[in-house]
Amino acid sequence: MSGERLIYLPLGGAGEIGMNAYVYGYGRPGKERLMLVDLGVAFPDMDTSPGVDVIVPDVSWLVDNLDRLDGIIITHAHEDHIGALPHLWPLLKKPVYARRFTAAIGRLKFEEAGLPLDAIITVEPRPAAVEIGPFKVQFLPLSHSIPESAGLVIDTPAGRILHTGDFKRDPTPIVGEGWDDAVMEAVAAEAPVKAMMCDSTNVFSPLPGRSEATLAEPLTELIAKAGGMVVATTFASNVARLKTLAEAARAADRSICVLGRAMKRMVAVAEETGVLTGFPRHVTPEEALEIPRRNLMLLVTGSQGERRAASAALSRGKYLGFEMKPGDTFLFSSKTIPGNERSVLRIMNALSETGVDIVDDAGGKYHVSGHANRPDLEHAHRVFLPDMLIPMHGEHRHLREHVRIAHEAGIAGMVATNGMMIDLTGEVPKLAEHVETGRVYLDGTALVGALDGVVRDRIRMALNGVAMVSVILDEQNEPLGEAWVELLGLPATGLGERPLNETMETELTEFLDAASGKILSDDDRLDEALKRIVRQVAMEEVGKKPEVRVVISRLSAE
Amino acid sequence: MSGERLIYLPLGGAGEIGMNAYVYGYGRPGKERLMLVDLGVAFPDMDTSPGVDVIVPDVSWLVDNLDRLDGIIITHAHEDHIGALPHLWPLLKKPVYARRFTAAIGRLKFEEAGLPLDAIITVEPRPAAVEIGPFKVQFLPLSHSIPESAGLVIDTPAGRILHTGDFKRDPTPIVGEGWDDAVMEAVAAEAPVKAMMCDSTNVFSPLPGRSEATLAEPLTELIAKAGGMVVATTFASNVARLKTLAEAARAADRSICVLGRAMKRMVAVAEETGVLTGFPRHVTPEEALEIPRRNLMLLVTGSQGERRAASAALSRGKYLGFEMKPGDTFLFSSKTIPGNERSVLRIMNALSETGVDIVDDAGGKYHVSGHANRPDLEHAHRVFLPDMLIPMHGEHRHLREHVRIAHEAGIAGMVATNGMMIDLTGEVPKLAEHVETGRVYLDGTALVGALDGVVRDRIRMALNGVAMVSVILDEQNEPLGEAWVELLGLPATGLGERPLNETMETELTEFLDAASGKILSDDDRLDEALKRIVRQVAMEEVGKKPEVRVVISRLSAE
Repeated sequence: MSGERLIYLPLGGAGEIGMNAYVYGYGRPGKERLMLVDLGVAFPDMDTSPGVDVIVPDVSWLVDNLDRLDGIIITHAHEDHIGALPHLWPLLKKPVYARRFTAAIGRLKFEEAGLPLDAIITVEPRPAAVEIGPFKVQFLPLSHSIPESAGLVIDTPAGRILHTGDFKRDPTPIVGEGWDDAVMEAVAAEAPVKAMMCDSTNVFSPLPGRSEATLAEPLTELIAKAGGMVVATTFASNVARLKTLAEAARAADRSICVLGRAMKRMVAVAEETGVLTGFPRHVTPEEALEIPRRNLMLLVTGSQGERRAASAALSRGKYLGFEMKPGDTFLFSSKTIPGNERSVLRIMNALSETGVDIVDDAGGKYHVSGHANRPDLEHAHRVFLPDMLIPMHGEHRHLREHVRIAHEAGIAGMVATNGMMIDLTGEVPKLAEHVETGRVYLDGTALVGALDGVVRDRIRMALNGVAMVSVILDEQNEPLGEAWVELLGLPATGLGERPLNETMETELTEFLDAASGKILSDDDRLDEALKRIVRQVAMEEVGKKPEVRVVISRLSAE
Repeated sequence: MSGERLIYLPLGGAGEIGMNAYVYGYGRPGKERLMLVDLGVAFPDMDTSPGVDVIVPDVSWLVDNLDRLDGIIITHAHEDHIGALPHLWPLLKKPVYARRFTAAIGRLKFEEAGLPLDAIITVEPRPAAVEIGPFKVQFLPLSHSIPESAGLVIDTPAGRILHTGDFKRDPTPIVGEGWDDAVMEAVAAEAPVKAMMCDSTNVFSPLPGRSEATLAEPLTELIAKAGGMVVATTFASNVARLKTLAEAARAADRSICVLGRAMKRMVAVAEETGVLTGFPRHVTPEEALEIPRRNLMLLVTGSQGERRAASAALSRGKYLGFEMKPGDTFLFSSKTIPGNERSVLRIMNALSETGVDIVDDAGGKYHVSGHANRPDLEHAHRVFLPDMLIPMHGEHRHLREHVRIAHEAGIAGMVATNGMMIDLTGEVPKLAEHVETGRVYLDGTALVGALDGVVRDRIRMALNGVAMVSVILDEQNEPLGEAWVELLGLPATGLGERPLNETMETELTEFLDAASGKILSDDDRLDEALKRIVRQVAMEEVGKKPEVRVVISRLSAE
């Protein structure tokens, strides 16, 4: 095996929370056989990526080495792990391996995108194994906030790797297999773990995580006490939470109605695949409207304030016939992901105006995280006893802190961010090479590079407004008619209350009338001069520097 | 006094945190003499107000009733209380009353804006009083996170009002007068408090607030242990915190250098006005660069992630010759205001990449709030014993919760949001009338109504991109040359990799060649038809619906 090496290369998810995409390879340098783990999206925001639909990792390195790629694994069905699959699979076209629930979600996505369903292969959990090139992979059930999250036990000619995926240490997760030290210790006992790629999301949470099961009592109590209608929102994919909420509702003699496409789909797939059993019967919205409010609980999407989801719709007024009323209770059984605060608060305040009682997770009573906290990470390190630890699924500060913890425990750790190809063959991780990566925007149906300037132009327009100038010249470079200015996103009037575009048109026309043939005949110089005038007027009149575009039309006598 | 009434009218700050502006009036209905308390700004964000400089309250009601307005009080120098003064004072031109420090900050603003400095009148704290129309007002020193915050004891012919302004219950605030129950009880003992207008910011914080003084020990310990350079950021106006930080630095044998215009100004004004004494000598940036890192602490602006402030600049690289290095410590002695999370995390991650140790307020050790928490509010209610409580300085959910607490204590409370004129004359607050209010954007140098459409257009451009179409027709309505399309913020190529604007131009030209004279001669119909084509091509090619503007130029043979 001399001359062969084991490599790890994050293309997304390492140095950010979102768009997970991790490559493993084994073979001679530059000839390694490759396997991709996860292909997720990140979400856009107005500050940095307005108008973008989703953000996907740049997989051009994989496309360039497509003959070496043997397969794709999806660890679980959260969007940041599976969301980019339908968008990027057509560039890769390799078999996709996932557990039953994840595969079912994947197939729904493939169906919508018109992709072949048989590209997705259902795998059974460990001890079953699937061979992908030089890798033998077992899917290790781990608890998280979605059914059937899987860690990966990856056996390679250079040793065993444990890729945790997203996980928490939850002995009683309500849905799916709980954490059992004996089960985990067996992984390390079978073969020493050479490297552990580990979830870092909650590395800054100092207390041990709490089990999903601890929520049943407070939620049951809360819902029992509530008057009026109860509406509860959480992450659509948190099927265990939905079950707990539904059972609490049933205990309070309330019927359950699920609103929101994503949530209905998750419940349906979870029931179909057998991961969710005993979920109370839920009624249709039409049936629910006939039930007294006191006997009804809605389970709805939109815990992050998404404008089009059910929570936001209900806060704005009627939604599918439902309307919030004073005395109703609205429960956020969720945490707000950083960046979504404003949207969530907007909903809360709108509900407050209606007289609805809002219950959120301020006290930590009605939500638990799906990720391992610092003491749980330390416990996992002790159980799997890896030689090396490479943190993933975190911003830079999370990865750095996670490495610090590993070092304290005597484990060789390394911060490996997107694009860093790490050689795991030796005793300690070593940087092998830097690979070009980045973010690609799915914008409508087009894929646009994050640095292409399209989104930069949008941000500039949003900050500065736009002025469009049209001038027409004849064959002798004489202006025909007057300059025309259209404004978008600029104050309508400047000083003296005169329309801003008229002030610009006056100045432009004066300039054109006085300009030399040398300038008028030169598109570039003319364009520059007209832009300068528009910017100057805008600055003087309204104190802004708009984006300016000039259309110079030259007419010839045909 | 029959037929006269006492009114309260929030124009900003009630139903939001920001742009505080509260009106009090006394007299016959519609003839009340008026007084304005505070005139602050709110801050824009990319989601709702891209490109806007600051948001100010709509004071047109005051402008319409200018002959009835007798004066303006500023309770303290935070931007959400004083920030709109230089922008709106020219519309009001009434005397401004404030305590020494606040007045000094106000005069600096007036100087920059070219406004008369003598419009700002310095008032001494209670028992001194100032008469403003029918109101006799005493400035009651209360602790907050800026020097000389004042509550207002307002004596009116209908009884005493206590307007808290922003406050906390801090017996040892480091700078300024601490909370003393005896002092506060005297206010109610002198004359019963008819109505209390009360800060609601922290009504959801269940534990009693901690004193500014409790930070000295943990900060001193932290800074003593730090290696390398220490950089600490907090709110520029938190002079007490700056003093604690500076003293902790001095105890650790570190020189202090203050970076950032706002912070330097606050320290200078606090020293000049005598509210800050014993602040350790601080060195200039030039001097600081000569001092060993181990003996230096920078106090810097930008705790909220502001792009242009010192914290962000340091995270990006060199700033005034300073550069962060591995082993340095960066302390956020501040909390992140909701909505600023992404900007703050960007700085933290950039620092993490440099190897800087980041200390934030996660554990609550290095920051205390400047607002009264729920138990402190309840305590203040008990001390001042008002007949009525009207919460202010809060979003709707804060106001509602604060009223709930008042009701529990047997106090008549009412949620009064912006534009609700409340009659306080009777036993309980009564809604008298609704006044038109809203938000006005300062956009460059122009004031733009929030609903004018200017900002809405910017948001649409940021989401959808822009297409500008130019066509020229002759007197016979014949197209001259081809249609021209300029795109901004749209993917450059659509399906088949053809430039998107070319595809549009082809379709437009084809349409023009085939169009009837009836359409070509009608600007509105032609505009509509051309827009439809551009949108359709954009949807087919890239899946987006851009904003479209069409310039139709009609040439006449002159």
